[in-house]
Amino acid sequence: MNDIFLRACRGEKVEYTPVWLMRQAGRYLPQYQAVRANIDFLALCKTPELAAEVTIQPVDILGVDAAILFSDILIPVEAMGMQLVFSDKDGPVFSEPIRNKSAVDRLIIPDAEVDMPFILESIKILREKLKNKVPLIGFSGAPFTLATYMIEGGGSRHFLQTKKMMFQNKRLFDYLMEKLTATLILYLSAQVKAGAQALQIFDTWAGMLSPIDYKNFALPYVKKIIYELKREGLPIIYFVNNCAGILHEVKKSGADIVGIDWRIDIADAIKKLGKKVVVQGNLDPCALFLSEEDIEERVKDILWKGEVARGHVFNLGHGVLPETPVKNVIALVKAVHRLSHI
Amino acid sequence: MNDIFLRACRGEKVEYTPVWLMRQAGRYLPQYQAVRANIDFLALCKTPELAAEVTIQPVDILGVDAAILFSDILIPVEAMGMQLVFSDKDGPVFSEPIRNKSAVDRLIIPDAEVDMPFILESIKILREKLKNKVPLIGFSGAPFTLATYMIEGGGSRHFLQTKKMMFQNKRLFDYLMEKLTATLILYLSAQVKAGAQALQIFDTWAGMLSPIDYKNFALPYVKKIIYELKREGLPIIYFVNNCAGILHEVKKSGADIVGIDWRIDIADAIKKLGKKVVVQGNLDPCALFLSEEDIEERVKDILWKGEVARGHVFNLGHGVLPETPVKNVIALVKAVHRLSHI
Repeated sequence: MNDIFLRACRGEKVEYTPVWLMRQAGRYLPQYQAVRANIDFLALCKTPELAAEVTIQPVDILGVDAAILFSDILIPVEAMGMQLVFSDKDGPVFSEPIRNKSAVDRLIIPDAEVDMPFILESIKILREKLKNKVPLIGFSGAPFTLATYMIEGGGSRHFLQTKKMMFQNKRLFDYLMEKLTATLILYLSAQVKAGAQALQIFDTWAGMLSPIDYKNFALPYVKKIIYELKREGLPIIYFVNNCAGILHEVKKSGADIVGIDWRIDIADAIKKLGKKVVVQGNLDPCALFLSEEDIEERVKDILWKGEVARGHVFNLGHGVLPETPVKNVIALVKAVHRLSHI
Repeated sequence: MNDIFLRACRGEKVEYTPVWLMRQAGRYLPQYQAVRANIDFLALCKTPELAAEVTIQPVDILGVDAAILFSDILIPVEAMGMQLVFSDKDGPVFSEPIRNKSAVDRLIIPDAEVDMPFILESIKILREKLKNKVPLIGFSGAPFTLATYMIEGGGSRHFLQTKKMMFQNKRLFDYLMEKLTATLILYLSAQVKAGAQALQIFDTWAGMLSPIDYKNFALPYVKKIIYELKREGLPIIYFVNNCAGILHEVKKSGADIVGIDWRIDIADAIKKLGKKVVVQGNLDPCALFLSEEDIEERVKDILWKGEVARGHVFNLGHGVLPETPVKNVIALVKAVHRLSHI
């Protein structure tokens, strides 16, 4: 098996820089679209054979150094008892957002084996199928990011309802966050038990908080999850979108690897993160619309700057966009391998 | 006249920290809603007597130290020849976005006196009415931010069309940006001639760029505008939303005052900006939903950190949100004045 990703995550010296891409399985791939033509998004997440199939597609097509389970960050939220609908226009929608104590009372802390067996089944199938290929990353959303969807009822621009709860009813917010934290610890542990070889926690919306609010309302919960998961002994990646202003706090999360978005120079990020963590990132997903030559120039710059970190896993700064040309994604992966080879 | 805002902008020692708020005129004020009940948004921007009225409202109600012309950043874009509609649901919409050379060819470089006389008229009325009160800030959008609306056809999430043009047709993007730059120099000069006493350039979307793209595709144009306007001798504020990762470049813009959003600690921002610029900001607009006591705590923190800058103008990190309680906004302004008084 190609285990270079796991070795890089542990800060070991590696023969080239491993690369995988957030949303490497997805709409930009015709092979994915072919599967999705017959099944809706949530059903696909819940059908292990098909979820495994689309998870493996980018491993074969792109030659990336890790697979990441095809799923959605809101799956455990649905399992907590919230009704989830994916609308083509508005994205994820919870028709009954969390606004008071009784709504949090009603949430359960799901048992993954009972409430999300399909996730564990997907992982088992994948470990079997990936045996001679690459490691499998399990994942979850971070508590703050999941809370925004639960409180707002879906995506948001200003996250006003979330911040209102934080600011006006800290006790209720904490009650919700603690329930999420407990859920995610169990959920991620179950993924590890089923066979996940690394974990990534996605904090897509933490970057909408001021540094002081991130420190008080988001970091403590994710820190607890990372602390609890550490005993499993596998690499834990914490991806924080829009992280530039809060990296000095993100650094304290306990994660082995910090994933960064593209709005910060990776050299700046490494300076802030220090020598104890491996950095993951950070090409702008839109840069995949450049020519192959220009993509290569950007890859060179990121690799060169990444060299001074404890370790570097190449990735985008956010997920692959639906319209991205597949040939450019393939060229990217090749360029990372070729240009970093020692 | 209370000229403390202008003195603070020049880096002079002042008796207390001046404060004004982005979108201080707007929907959260019942007095504004009363005016808007009878007229749509764009028509209000174009009716000098009413635009002046809503501009003055927050000066009287909040006691802020500066007024900012009530208008919209897209007014000069419409004057360039693009058809603009404000939809309640989708915000600003240009039904024919810019995608090729002939679309840019068709844009004119408007003469503010002829094409936007209402703006100049509003400023003249305001200077008359504000005579014994506070200075008047004129403004425009920055070229990059305006270009995103023109290319995307409205608001956007990933700014893919804009970045595609930047990446795949640099010449076309530059052609558009140069036309915008010329337009904005004339537009802001006309505002100064009509009586604006300071200028703010809003770069709402520059923070969606990676540092290298900001440096190449956004900064040079705004720098040119600031350079040209400098000869007018009045303070120029450059507000960059989501600035944390690009402040080392923003610093080079030539602006006298840099406005920052709330996602960065103001102490960090001052460290990055150095001793040559005055800093403006940076309370999270959502923090206005805190209790008055908690608002005060946050004000204290920002004022305390702001003291080490060349100068500090208190503001939010983004515009006042529509649902904001007016009493909290009044409390904020009072707290800034009281807590900073020497």
